[in-house]
Amino acid sequence: MSLYGGVEGGGTKWECAIGTGPDDVRAAATVPTTTPAETIGAIVEFFLREGPVDAVGIGSFGPLDARPGSATWGYVTTTPKRGWQNADVGQEIRRRLGVPVAFDTDVNAAALGEHRWGSGRGLRSIWYVTVGTGIGGGAVVDGQLLHGLSHPEFGHLRVPHDRAADPFPGSCPYHGDCLEGLASGTALEARWGCAADEIEDDAAWALEARYLALGLLATVAVLSPERIVVGGGVARHPGLLQRVQGELTTLMNGYLGFELPTGYVTEPALGARAGVLGAIALAETAAAT
Amino acid sequence: MSLYGGVEGGGTKWECAIGTGPDDVRAAATVPTTTPAETIGAIVEFFLREGPVDAVGIGSFGPLDARPGSATWGYVTTTPKRGWQNADVGQEIRRRLGVPVAFDTDVNAAALGEHRWGSGRGLRSIWYVTVGTGIGGGAVVDGQLLHGLSHPEFGHLRVPHDRAADPFPGSCPYHGDCLEGLASGTALEARWGCAADEIEDDAAWALEARYLALGLLATVAVLSPERIVVGGGVARHPGLLQRVQGELTTLMNGYLGFELPTGYVTEPALGARAGVLGAIALAETAAAT
Repeated sequence: MSLYGGVEGGGTKWECAIGTGPDDVRAAATVPTTTPAETIGAIVEFFLREGPVDAVGIGSFGPLDARPGSATWGYVTTTPKRGWQNADVGQEIRRRLGVPVAFDTDVNAAALGEHRWGSGRGLRSIWYVTVGTGIGGGAVVDGQLLHGLSHPEFGHLRVPHDRAADPFPGSCPYHGDCLEGLASGTALEARWGCAADEIEDDAAWALEARYLALGLLATVAVLSPERIVVGGGVARHPGLLQRVQGELTTLMNGYLGFELPTGYVTEPALGARAGVLGAIALAETAAAT
Repeated sequence: MSLYGGVEGGGTKWECAIGTGPDDVRAAATVPTTTPAETIGAIVEFFLREGPVDAVGIGSFGPLDARPGSATWGYVTTTPKRGWQNADVGQEIRRRLGVPVAFDTDVNAAALGEHRWGSGRGLRSIWYVTVGTGIGGGAVVDGQLLHGLSHPEFGHLRVPHDRAADPFPGSCPYHGDCLEGLASGTALEARWGCAADEIEDDAAWALEARYLALGLLATVAVLSPERIVVGGGVARHPGLLQRVQGELTTLMNGYLGFELPTGYVTEPALGARAGVLGAIALAETAAAT
């Protein structure tokens, strides 16, 4: 039986695991995000020590190049993260471990993990969103991760912003009041002056639910996924997802001709492990090709 | 060699064709949209007279039920079109012709036609939008039409609407100022007091380009298609699509890390025939299952 390595890369740490799924993780490690050389060195060292593995899946922060055949496939590209611009992650790990490597976004890995073992099990299509420091999205459609011109950059679509009701100009350095600029953890902290998990004002959470629902409405209008799974720190606020589904229902105003199923907008069954476990599922796709 | 029937259903007329593709249409007819019984009767009569065909594909106005296995598969459902609410189109045609029938939205049929023979040929994914009386969208992803909870209802997402610059409240009976309510032909006529093709004010077209770009930004953020094909009467306004791509580029503000390809937002190579030819491609999928 094959054994897979999963790697989930974030701005502060990289999670590594070896196994075949949620009930069979044989080794795990957390590596701090310092320089690419040091971080990748520690990841490779973990797999050499605890492996061998037959393939590795990497779900990384981005933007990144996941286009097969591209000369810079496996690179983190235009990230604001210092020292990580144009950092080769995927090719370097593939070269040093000598096994097939699949490389994708952290949210696509989480989408795959949730589709395989979590809240999206058995469904034809799901949309996975993370609402944390930033906002990102990824999709599984007919069992496959969605790719096109690039990977989805969900956080940067625009939603209606009533500046009379919410004068906050938005926190995105690229677009100001895009969805991420209005509703990410970074935006919440800048608007309300405290971390998201310290915000108690109910009106603040009503506004947050409204913005997230406007973003998800675009997802329903374009992709029509069978379920929407929302992870990330901000999404863990009690009752927020039920409220988002309520707002989404209001915004749709009966147009679909049927109600959204209960729990249409739901939390990841794999919790914070969705990314690293999804990376294991990614590794399996690399081994199969 | 198999011969296919294609049917494209609209609010004023239904187009029927028999053939195998754009260069091989052997018979065609236009049937007025009157009552379901009369219109379907004329369609069936055309295929009985000019056929036989091995399968029929139907791309219809909606909302409709295209969910395989549903008891009301093949029905037009909650349409405002008088007499057509809960009209059985697909099952009736299948029963009377005794051949496999594929049933989908008009825009999904057009998306399939453009992917197979038109502006989306050879691409992994495309998004097809029609901007006419209403606004609708459909996608081909990895060669397959996109389905999920329902079909996409692109026109009903919300985009930023600056009521100081554009006090028009929107024309959608369900949502007011959704994308369709702001940018469809119906909206243009209501806002400017004349039909879309009579509007000469450049500022009106600048506003139209802006709204369409905001809608397409959501498509790029969620689906990231390799190309966007825009059909429908309003989209034929000279220079509009180039202007939409310019606005889209401005809205993205370099975030993808590379420029949109020239002609990323483009017209349907099959023109007004995209729907009925796409229905022939749909028929082929029905024959294959």
